Amino acid sequence: MVIASQYATPETIKTMRKDGGGLIFLMVSKEIADKLKLPFLSDLYSDISNRYPVLKALVPNDIPYDTKSSFSLYINHRQTFTGVTDNDRSLTMRRFAELSEEVENLDDDSALTLFGKEFRSPGHVPICVASEQLLNKRRGHTELVVSLLKMANLTPVGSGCEMMGDDGKSLHKDKAKQYALDHNLVFLSGKEIIGEWKKWSK
Amino acid sequence: MVIASQYATPETIKTMRKDGGGLIFLMVSKEIADKLKLPFLSDLYSDISNRYPVLKALVPNDIPYDTKSSFSLYINHRQTFTGVTDNDRSLTMRRFAELSEEVENLDDDSALTLFGKEFRSPGHVPICVASEQLLNKRRGHTELVVSLLKMANLTPVGSGCEMMGDDGKSLHKDKAKQYALDHNLVFLSGKEIIGEWKKWSK
Repeated sequence: MVIASQYATPETIKTMRKDGGGLIFLMVSKEIADKLKLPFLSDLYSDISNRYPVLKALVPNDIPYDTKSSFSLYINHRQTFTGVTDNDRSLTMRRFAELSEEVENLDDDSALTLFGKEFRSPGHVPICVASEQLLNKRRGHTELVVSLLKMANLTPVGSGCEMMGDDGKSLHKDKAKQYALDHNLVFLSGKEIIGEWKKWSK
Repeated sequence: MVIASQYATPETIKTMRKDGGGLIFLMVSKEIADKLKLPFLSDLYSDISNRYPVLKALVPNDIPYDTKSSFSLYINHRQTFTGVTDNDRSLTMRRFAELSEEVENLDDDSALTLFGKEFRSPGHVPICVASEQLLNKRRGHTELVVSLLKMANLTPVGSGCEMMGDDGKSLHKDKAKQYALDHNLVFLSGKEIIGEWKKWSK
């Protein structure tokens, strides 16, 4: 389940943690990540693995669904307390989306200063960074969501989580469809988004 | 809410995400972290902040409840798929606790090899590392839980999450007490644990 982060509220986070249940994370476009100098954790880890041998031992070379982890840093807004309450996570997410717009026309140094003034890391909200060519390259949740937001002309920063089933696995597609129906939400398959993206991005 | 990770099951994770709602994380003793060469993320970030200026900008020098973040790496067991389902997170947590026992009498290199054979990072399960002197030094959730596990003669690796209220904040203490009563769980205050720890650790 997913929402444009600019519209994230405490109620949104509550719904995600109660009815979704997966890790609640931010999905951002590569352009925004570049502007804010957000690295891929796997690159950062690789760069410092000589000093921290555990990073070599734990190298993520066998992710079953991907060639590379899209995780970047975990952040908290500096005005949060623990960082994990519904109030705190929605503030972190909404302000991250707003800030992404605010820094767009700033030079890189000013953008980074503004980012650091409001946010700290480590924190409780993981950021995943979309592949640069979006759905033309990688077709993970992050790319699907960022593409959708671009097509909708919203800030390309999404908040979401995987929905969990009661059987220890991810929620079955049919049940996710039913949930959307029951809660007046839109159900979209990856295939539908990719189809629209192909037309839109031509 | 918290459980000794050696007893974590898919059902445990389900209860934590449905009834708890905070970030589900591992809490481990400093001895285990040292054996597995697990760093504090804030140290790692500080060591590489010249190459990644964003880490300098986001430096966590204003955590309202602490002087230093206790976050270490985020891991997944290598036999997980997304890493976030109840099956996946319980496997990561239970095997981490078991491995902590298995490496105890190994030399450091063999311990690290075994760790890397089973786990990867980045992942979906954050590890927090307790202060070395436990409750004599810091009195966060991590120290409270690790102390409790030591007193109970269990592997000092705990799984837990903060409980959320319906008002956007943490669950009020009285409501947490009522939840424990309704679900036949034990409610313990930090004060009680610290009191017992003082007697036990003499």
